[in-house]
Parts: sequence; structure tokens; C-alpha cells
Amino acid sequence: MTSPLSKKAPQASSAATGSAEQPRTPFGLVERLFPICRSITGNGVRETLAILREYLPELVVHEVPSGTPVLDWTVPAEWNIRDAWVKNEKGEKVIDFRQHNLHVLNYSTPVRSWFTRAELDEHLFSLPDQPDLIPYRTSYYQPNWGFCLAHHDRLALPEGRYEVCIDSTLDAAGALTYGELLLPGSSQEEVLISCHCCHPSLANDNLSGIAVATFLARHLAEHPRHFSYRFVFIPGTIGSITWLSRNTETVQHIQHGLVATLLGGPGNFTYKKSRRGAADVDRAVAVVLRDSRLPHEIRPFSPYGYDERQYCSPGFNLPVGCLSRTPFGEFTEYHTSADNLDFVRPEHLSQAIDIFSQVSNVLETNRYYRNLSPYGEPQLGRRGLYKGVGGGTEGADWQMAILWVLNLSDEEHSLLAIAEQSGLPYRLIERAAAALLACDLLAPVTQSSK
Amino acid sequence: MTSPLSKKAPQASSAATGSAEQPRTPFGLVERLFPICRSITGNGVRETLAILREYLPELVVHEVPSGTPVLDWTVPAEWNIRDAWVKNEKGEKVIDFRQHNLHVLNYSTPVRSWFTRAELDEHLFSLPDQPDLIPYRTSYYQPNWGFCLAHHDRLALPEGRYEVCIDSTLDAAGALTYGELLLPGSSQEEVLISCHCCHPSLANDNLSGIAVATFLARHLAEHPRHFSYRFVFIPGTIGSITWLSRNTETVQHIQHGLVATLLGGPGNFTYKKSRRGAADVDRAVAVVLRDSRLPHEIRPFSPYGYDERQYCSPGFNLPVGCLSRTPFGEFTEYHTSADNLDFVRPEHLSQAIDIFSQVSNVLETNRYYRNLSPYGEPQLGRRGLYKGVGGGTEGADWQMAILWVLNLSDEEHSLLAIAEQSGLPYRLIERAAAALLACDLLAPVTQSSK
Amino acid sequence: MTSPLSKKAPQASSAATGSAEQPRTPFGLVERLFPICRSITGNGVRETLAILREYLPELVVHEVPSGTPVLDWTVPAEWNIRDAWVKNEKGEKVIDFRQHNLHVLNYSTPVRSWFTRAELDEHLFSLPDQPDLIPYRTSYYQPNWGFCLAHHDRLALPEGRYEVCIDSTLDAAGALTYGELLLPGSSQEEVLISCHCCHPSLANDNLSGIAVATFLARHLAEHPRHFSYRFVFIPGTIGSITWLSRNTETVQHIQHGLVATLLGGPGNFTYKKSRRGAADVDRAVAVVLRDSRLPHEIRPFSPYGYDERQYCSPGFNLPVGCLSRTPFGEFTEYHTSADNLDFVRPEHLSQAIDIFSQVSNVLETNRYYRNLSPYGEPQLGRRGLYKGVGGGTEGADWQMAILWVLNLSDEEHSLLAIAEQSGLPYRLIERAAAALLACDLLAPVTQSSK
Repeated sequence: MTSPLSKKAPQASSAATGSAEQPRTPFGLVERLFPICRSITGNGVRETLAILREYLPELVVHEVPSGTPVLDWTVPAEWNIRDAWVKNEKGEKVIDFRQHNLHVLNYSTPVRSWFTRAELDEHLFSLPDQPDLIPYRTSYYQPNWGFCLAHHDRLALPEGRYEVCIDSTLDAAGALTYGELLLPGSSQEEVLISCHCCHPSLANDNLSGIAVATFLARHLAEHPRHFSYRFVFIPGTIGSITWLSRNTETVQHIQHGLVATLLGGPGNFTYKKSRRGAADVDRAVAVVLRDSRLPHEIRPFSPYGYDERQYCSPGFNLPVGCLSRTPFGEFTEYHTSADNLDFVRPEHLSQAIDIFSQVSNVLETNRYYRNLSPYGEPQLGRRGLYKGVGGGTEGADWQMAILWVLNLSDEEHSLLAIAEQSGLPYRLIERAAAALLACDLLAPVTQSSK
Repeated sequence: MTSPLSKKAPQASSAATGSAEQPRTPFGLVERLFPICRSITGNGVRETLAILREYLPELVVHEVPSGTPVLDWTVPAEWNIRDAWVKNEKGEKVIDFRQHNLHVLNYSTPVRSWFTRAELDEHLFSLPDQPDLIPYRTSYYQPNWGFCLAHHDRLALPEGRYEVCIDSTLDAAGALTYGELLLPGSSQEEVLISCHCCHPSLANDNLSGIAVATFLARHLAEHPRHFSYRFVFIPGTIGSITWLSRNTETVQHIQHGLVATLLGGPGNFTYKKSRRGAADVDRAVAVVLRDSRLPHEIRPFSPYGYDERQYCSPGFNLPVGCLSRTPFGEFTEYHTSADNLDFVRPEHLSQAIDIFSQVSNVLETNRYYRNLSPYGEPQLGRRGLYKGVGGGTEGADWQMAILWVLNLSDEEHSLLAIAEQSGLPYRLIERAAAALLACDLLAPVTQSSK
Repeated sequence: MTSPLSKKAPQASSAATGSAEQPRTPFGLVERLFPICRSITGNGVRETLAILREYLPELVVHEVPSGTPVLDWTVPAEWNIRDAWVKNEKGEKVIDFRQHNLHVLNYSTPVRSWFTRAELDEHLFSLPDQPDLIPYRTSYYQPNWGFCLAHHDRLALPEGRYEVCIDSTLDAAGALTYGELLLPGSSQEEVLISCHCCHPSLANDNLSGIAVATFLARHLAEHPRHFSYRFVFIPGTIGSITWLSRNTETVQHIQHGLVATLLGGPGNFTYKKSRRGAADVDRAVAVVLRDSRLPHEIRPFSPYGYDERQYCSPGFNLPVGCLSRTPFGEFTEYHTSADNLDFVRPEHLSQAIDIFSQVSNVLETNRYYRNLSPYGEPQLGRRGLYKGVGGGTEGADWQMAILWVLNLSDEEHSLLAIAEQSGLPYRLIERAAAALLACDLLAPVTQSSK
């Protein structure tokens, strides 16, 4: 009497058995992290971050004591769970946390007692419209206990008495745990990449975001950087609030930021703009998605969603958007046991890493130039810039990129603005600017003169 | 030989017989006012205002002497009419003002003489395309006399001689009459509601506007008000010009204004923006109509129309729009005997009063707030704001309203702006702000600090 | 073995035989200029300008010595050509410049030698997709020689040896020639009309532009002008660069400008905006095309195209757009022998002259006015402005034009802005302003007070 589990269904007992011999791929990381029972505090997050440190040795793990005031909130007691089950009168487990860690209401208080069927039912959560799926439910701030199960299984529970065990702890002397990685660049100005790491066995939400952020960090670490990149792996809401409360100085260095989430499932890329609406990061993501020729959607800011809610609160108003595929609540697998390893497509993780990497490239290379030969067009032929670098359309686009960069390099248009206005790929605009710079036809505009 | 008249067709002889026992409904008011032969001056307006004083005892009636210079104009001689007819050689009345007061060209000069059929014809007005309807025609500023009649009736007039009588007076020692009601609020800042009261027996144009304004005033009088509300019942064009010329001080207090007209006929609400185009009243009407979910249309300002032409002349440039249903000239009954009591729907009057009332509510409650906990989201749960006030979608909208108000209360966004940006109903935004204010999460921004 | 030539095909030998007895029509001018073999320098341009001086006696011809530095460029050696042919072993001409002057690669270096079929082929240019047409090819800045021919003819050339003669000269002591006409107005502020005159026998590109500019100049010369009009007939690119380099003072007087090109072929008017995007000339052309009720297209600026590329380089950033019919590269006849006299429609030239003339009228008459009776509407009736100048719709539009001009003459809206906002034809707005000015209801806003 358990849910029909896929072969990849998590079993709490195997939570920490990820093998270091696995090839270090984004999807491999998702597979290793999937079985762990995470929450907004506790050992599940610590275990997750310990695995991430295998991929990112410089990752720093922070522990913030329960009870610490953080902005308008307080760090809650730390929750841990060893086991949980419901037995019938025959002593048979009818619900078993060890079969699937979604079975327990996240942050359930400890309980060990007998209940009637009716009493038990008040602590059960299921989805009548999706009767085969286990829902994901939490009760962080209202003390409660409960079990989540497939609706079919719930209906099949006969009258009678049930023994309930939730072997959990809520430790007021515990801590909230988060991970932070700083990749220093040549500038103190920072790009923030944030992902939530508080969900138990849900693959798309948000092991996909964790994997993309991890492999993006590994990629960026290998290249010179203008910006410093700060990656935070935090529990949702309370984690970003905790981080913000401890980093009011750091926050002032953040020039651009993205929340990374829901990047492995199906559906098109969807970008939700920052509260500012036309921040460079908003424009950069829009241009990169445009250039990708992938179908995608750009949405305005709204104050609901992931941790961008906190970064974009009016007091901070950071230029942080949220890049995902199909947003939360818009796919039927959302917050159910169907958000499993089968739901995440390895190639979507790679594609997302590429898109984030391209956004980083735009932010890194975007700047203002001044045309040093602004009166009429300079004679391109004698500088070898008249013919295209390739043949056909590429050549025509290259020629147009040269002309656009020359025409708009008036100290008022960034390369990003030129890519937007010309409709040409950013990479082509960037290369055209490099070629013109090499010919002494452009000069970068320095911050002070800009 | 008269037009086919409906049972409700006006008879000048019964003009002042409205019964006080009628229930005081908007449509009842329209019915009482319908038979009166109004013009831009004269006893028809006085009689109308006397009836309005039964509904609005504080209404002040102003008399401005003929010959008074008003802006670029002069108050004309006062026109009154006792009788008018055309008789054939047998002495039979073939056109009779007492059958319908549209039969006489409004502002006709007095005449008593015999004319040939051809001579008479030069003074007849009819509608070949709508041969059953009597047109409404005026000649305020070019002395003339004439009769309006159904085109079928005109064609049926045989050759012969006709005796014509128009028993009218044009009194250079007369006056222009208008009504004005001030509902004082806690502020000297004013909202202007203007409607024209110069048309004879036309029900939609503009007894509908008069009835809506009257019952809106009764409604507002019963509630506390921030703004003072000024209602003017004026003859079209010359009336608003006269009022403006006498109120150059008052005009400076007008913060918002609406012309109320054509509110009883069929068709969707149509709002014509003020000359400013994005005045608060323009935005408030747009949001109220959006929230109503009624089909409607928003149009840009144009310098033709009703008295908004005068209020929005460049010297005054007041934020006054015009709210109607189907605009003038766009329905076939316009300015004909078909604009009768059958054409006005009582429920449309009520709906219009409700819309005006909601616009008033937006203007009254719209203000700027400051989020007192702007760093991250405040913890709503411990303040009882996390769960919705109702169930289902209402709850989700309520939660979103709370988040939007918190996010945008940065002293830069009014509640109206938040309603616009969030797409949520203004009333929900208003209630969310009230709830947050009660929790000390918001503070109103005072005028001086704003 | 020659291309199938139309009766109007150019023969270099008859180049200068234009008859002064021809009626001086735009199309007649195109016909006279068509046979001349022009290039960016040389006698073809001189001959062209000499003919234009018959139409525009004040046209000044400038000669700028080869080797002169002009902005980032240098005036090239002057190219002239007397004859060119390819003969087969039998001495038969298989390609003959005298049959069509497109046959020679423009700016070919001199050559007189024998070549194998394969050697010759490297110097041949044809269009496989348009096998009947001779392409137009140039090599101004890379020394080369070559022949252009129909692809069918190229394929029909058998193996064997060929004698090649190109009897051309490249004279480093030569000059670049251009024409310039200034029509002085009452103001030193200038309108620039620019057209390229460097293409050999191509009728639409750009004899059409030359003809339109010429007849526009003749038209404007007959009327009083506020602006001074400067017409330049210049070789493409190097010509405008040369002119700009010699006129850095003049450039500062240019208030508006248009490049005139491709105005005789089929297709709709297409306007490419100046780099500024909302310059008066951009708005004037848009309103004139709108008022014309002709289908048309307005495009944003792009840094590719005709000499607007130079005028709109960031250092100059002149308000110069480009008005054409179907733009370059978007019709199959472009830069081929099919762009011949049959391709140009005489009535399209007339229509283009009319459009340019109307744009000029807008620029001449566009100004700001102040309503001298801005409080309420002035009484139009007593000034004879109440009834329309014509009947029906014209009358209604006229009345609306009066009201719009009164309402928006607040010193902030030009007549052009009023035409845009009202949707009414500019000419009607202009006439309404004149009528109101005559009634002392408007006063022009002087430059100093504006």
C-alpha cells in the first residue's frame, strides 16, 4: 500500500550514497541530490552543500543560529527527521517516509500516538485531481504534523485505529545553513546568482537550478572575469532574507543578478524581469534569448515567485530577475512526486548553463565606445573590414554589425543597446567592436568620462 | 397629420405636471423632466432646476443677465415660447408645438403671417433618411424661425397657403439660468461634475446625465468626503463659458472633473480623456471601467464634444474628461424624437451612478504610501495577513494585493498606479493598503514630504 | 552575340546627343541622361551636370583634385573610358561596351592583351539566377578590370583565345566632380536635398532621383522660401564625404534634409528615418505620406543605404532621411540592365516631385502659435468661422481643424504636431491656422520667445 514509485524514487536510507565515481555532469548532480530530504534548515541542506563542495571546493557553508533576528523575521528552530510512518492495527506501515520523503509534511512536529481514521484524516494531504501523486506540503511557521499521500491511497485507508510516528526534532539551539561562493573578478562589482536549496525530492524545483548554478560557477571559474560572481545556495525566502540581513554592505556591490530555478523541465525559457524592468540584466537576458532563436517568453516583474521577491523588495530594489523554463504553478507536476528525475531533461540543463553563460558574457563585455572617426564613415576597405569574415549572409551581417557599431558608438549606446537596436546578434556586435578597436576606430569610454 | 407619437411623447401643455408622489428614482426624474421645453435660456431651464431642488435642496440657481460679457462671448437674450403652429387654409393645424416641442426650431424668433408652400419650406427641417423622426434643430446665434417635422409629413404638405404662428419672445433684459451645488469636503480641492441641461424633450441627451449627476450628488452627500464636489447643471457651451467666466478663482481648486452625458441609452461606456491625457481622473475612470469587466472604450481627447471643450481649452486645461455610453452622433436616435423615454434604460442610469461613485471612491482614497518594512518582505504570517480573506481565487488575489502594495509603496506609486500595474481591482488594492496600514507596515506619505 | 537590348538601350556613342528641343519633363531628363557612362569621377559626371545646367542654370560644378584628403578618405584618381571590347579569334566582338556601358566593370584599369577562355572567365561577372540581365559591378578602390554580361552569353563563350581591350584611363591628376545649387531663402537655415549621380545607364538608380531633385529645384525657385535649399548632385559615398569635408560650416545650417533616390520604379513610397528618428523632416514626411493616402512604409534608420549614411554618421548626425519607392536590393531589376527606361514610370516621377514639394511646404509653414483667446472656445460664429468652407465632410473637417488648432496652440504644439495628433491633413491645419491668424485669434510664437 504505497504509491507507485519510479525506479528513481528516493529512499531516505540511500540519501548520502552518491558515488564520487559518477561523471560530474549537471544531471549526475541532480541524481545525487534527489534522494536527500531537505528543508529550510537541518541536515538535508548540510548534506547537499557537502556534495556541492565536491564540485565547488571554495564553497563556504554558513550556519546562522536559530533565533537570530533577520530583517523582519527570525531564524526558526532547526528541523531534522529520522523516520515517520503510519501503521494500521495489524502493525503494517500504510504510509512510510522511507519510501518517499514527500510523505511527511515538511517541518512536522514530533508525534507518537494512536488516532482514529477520522483524527488521522485531519493530518493527511492529497490531491483529488491528481490521485496518483504525492503532494509536497510544508508548515514552517505554524506548528503542525501531517502526512502527504496519493489520493487513491488515502481513500483506500479503512476505518480503524492507526499508530502514527514522526521522529523529528525542532531544535531552538540549531541553525539555518546556506552555501556561498565568491569568484573574485577584477572588479569589486558583483553578479549574484541565487538558487533555493530547501526542497526535498523535487528534481526540477530546484535541483535543476542548483545544478545549473554549480556548473555555471565551474565554467566561470575557468575564465578571467571583470565582475566578481557570488553564488548563493539558500533556503527559499528565509534564506535570502537571512543572507540579505547579513550582507547589507555586499548588496551595494551587486550590479546584476539572476535567480536560477526550474531549468530542467519541459517548456520554453521564461524570464521574469527585475523590479526595475529595464536593468542591464533584463536587457541582456532578453537579447541572449532572442539571439538563441529558442521560443521564449519575457514577463514583467511581479512581487510573487522565488527569492527575487526579497532582492527586489523596495528597500533593496536590486536588479535581479528570475530565469526559468515553465514557471511554478504552470505545470501539473509542480510540487508533486511527479517532479522526479524523469521530469528533468539533461540537455535542458546544458542549454540553461549555456544561456546563463551567454548572459554573463554580455554583462562582461557590454560597454560604451566612442567612434574615433565619427565624421562620415571611415574607409573600411583599406583596413580590411569591408569584406565579410565569412560568406553569404554571415558576411552581410558582419558588415552591418561594423556599420551599426560605428554609427552608434557615440558614448550614448552600449554594445547591448546596439544589439537591441540593430537586431543583430550580440556576439556579432561584440566581435565587430573588437575588430574596430583593433583598427583604432573605437576607444572605450572610461567610467569617469562616461 | 402629426408624427406618430409614442405614449410617452411630450406635450408642452403638460410640461409642469410632474407628480411629487412619484418614487424618487433616476428614471422617475428623467420622466418628470422630459416634457419640459428647455433651451439655453428661459423658463424651461428654471422649471428644470426647480424640480432638481426637490432632490437637491442645496442647489443654488444663478441668473446671469443677458448681455453680460462672458469670456469671448455674450450672454444672449432670453428665449421663451408659449405656442407655435402651422395651419393650412382650412385652419387645421398641420404642425403643432403642443404635440411635440421638438417641432419648433429652438430659439425661433416670433412670427405670425401667411406663407406659400414654397416660402414655408425654407423654414422646415426634416430627415430624409429617417423620415418618421422629428429632428432637433437650434439657431441660437443666427436669428431665424422654423419648424422641424417628420420627413413623411413634410412631403405630405400640399401646395397652398399656410398661416404660421410662433409665439416666442427674445428678451434682452432676460437672463441665462444655471444650477450649482457644492458638497463641501474636508479639503478645498474640488471635483467638478458637469452636465448640460439645455435640450428639450431628449431623454438620453441629456436628462440621463442630469439624473446621474443628481443621484450621484445625493449619494455623495451621505458620506464623508475628502474632496469638495461641485455639480453644475448648465446650458451647453454658453453655460460652461458663463460659469468659467464667473469662477476663475474656483477653477484653481478643481483637481478632477467629469462631464456626465448620454448615460441612459444602449451601447458601452465610452470615456473620452481630458486634454492632459493621463490625469488622475483619466486613470481612475480607466481602472474603474476595467474593474467593472463591462465592455467599454477609452478614447483620446478631441476638442469637439460637450462642455469638456471649454474646461479643456488651453487657458484652463482642467483635468476634465467625459463619461458617456455611445457618444453623440454615433447612434441613429441622436438629436431626434427617437431619443425619447423608451430609449433610456433605467438600469443603465443605476449602473452609471455606480461607476461615477466608484470613480469618486478611487479619487478619494488614492494616495501614496511608504512601506515601513521595505527590506525584504515582512513576515505576513505573524500579522495574520498570510491567508486570504476569502477562499480560492479571491484569497490568491488578496495575497497578491498585499504583496503588490508592499512592493510598490516606495512613495513613487499611488494606489491607482499599483492597481494599474498589478492588474488587480482597485478595491482590493485599497483594502490591502488598509490592512497593511492597520499593521503599521505602511505609512501615508504626507503632501509636504511627497 | 549581344544581350537582347530594348529600343531604349544606351549606346555610348550617342551619349551627348540629348536634344534641347525635347520638352523639359522629368522623364525627358531621365531619357537624356540614361546613355551616359557615369562613374564616381570622370567625364560622365561632367556631361551629366552640363545637361542639368540647362535645367538649372545656377548649378555650380565643383572639381576636387584627385589625392585630396576628404575626412577619412582620399579623392581617387579620375577614371575615363573610351572603348572596351572582347573579340574572339575571328576578330568578332563578343562583348562590346558600345552596346551597353554596363558591360564594363566600372573603374576597370586599362588592358589590351590575349587571354584564354579560363583566364578571361576570372574577369567576367554575370547573374546565374537572372541569366538574361547584365549586372552592374564596380571596383573603385581595388584595381581590377572586368566585363559584365548576361549569364546566357557567358555560358555560350566557347573555349579558345580572346583579345581584350579596355581603353580606360586612371588619372592621378584628375578630379572628382559634383554639382551644387543653392536657392537662397529668407533664412540662412538650410534644407539639403542630395542625390547620387555616379551610376551609368541605370534609370531608377538614380536618374529618377536626379530628375526629381532637378524639377523640385525648378519648382521651389519659383516661390518665396523661408529656408535656403541646397541641392547636391554627387557621386555616392565619396561624393557626400567630399562635400561634407568641404562644408563643415555649411553643415551647421542644415535644419532638414532628404536623400532622393529610386523614385521612378514601381512599389510604394518608403521612407527611412534619419538617425535622430523623430526629426521634423521625419515627422513631415510621415504626415505628407499619410495625407497622400498612398500606401507607404516608414522604416527606422539603419546605417546602410545611400548618402544618408554619411550625413547621419555620429559626428554630423544631421536630420537627413531617405525617401524612395521600393528600396535598393528589394526589386529584382536592382543593379542590372533591367533598370532601364522601361522600368521608370513618368507619372511616378511627377508624384514624387509632388510629395517632396509637400514636405517642403510642411517644413516652410510649420510653426508654433499661441491662442490669443485661450479661455474657453472663442465664439467662431461672429467671426465667420463656424460654417465650413465647403459642404459635407470637408466642412466637418474644417471645423475640427479650427478647433484643434485653437486647442493645441499653447506654444508647445507646432502645426505638424497638431496634424499628427488630430489625424487631419496638414494642409487643412495650415489653412485653419491662417484663418485664425487673420481673425487675430492666433499669434505666431517668435523664436526668441519660444
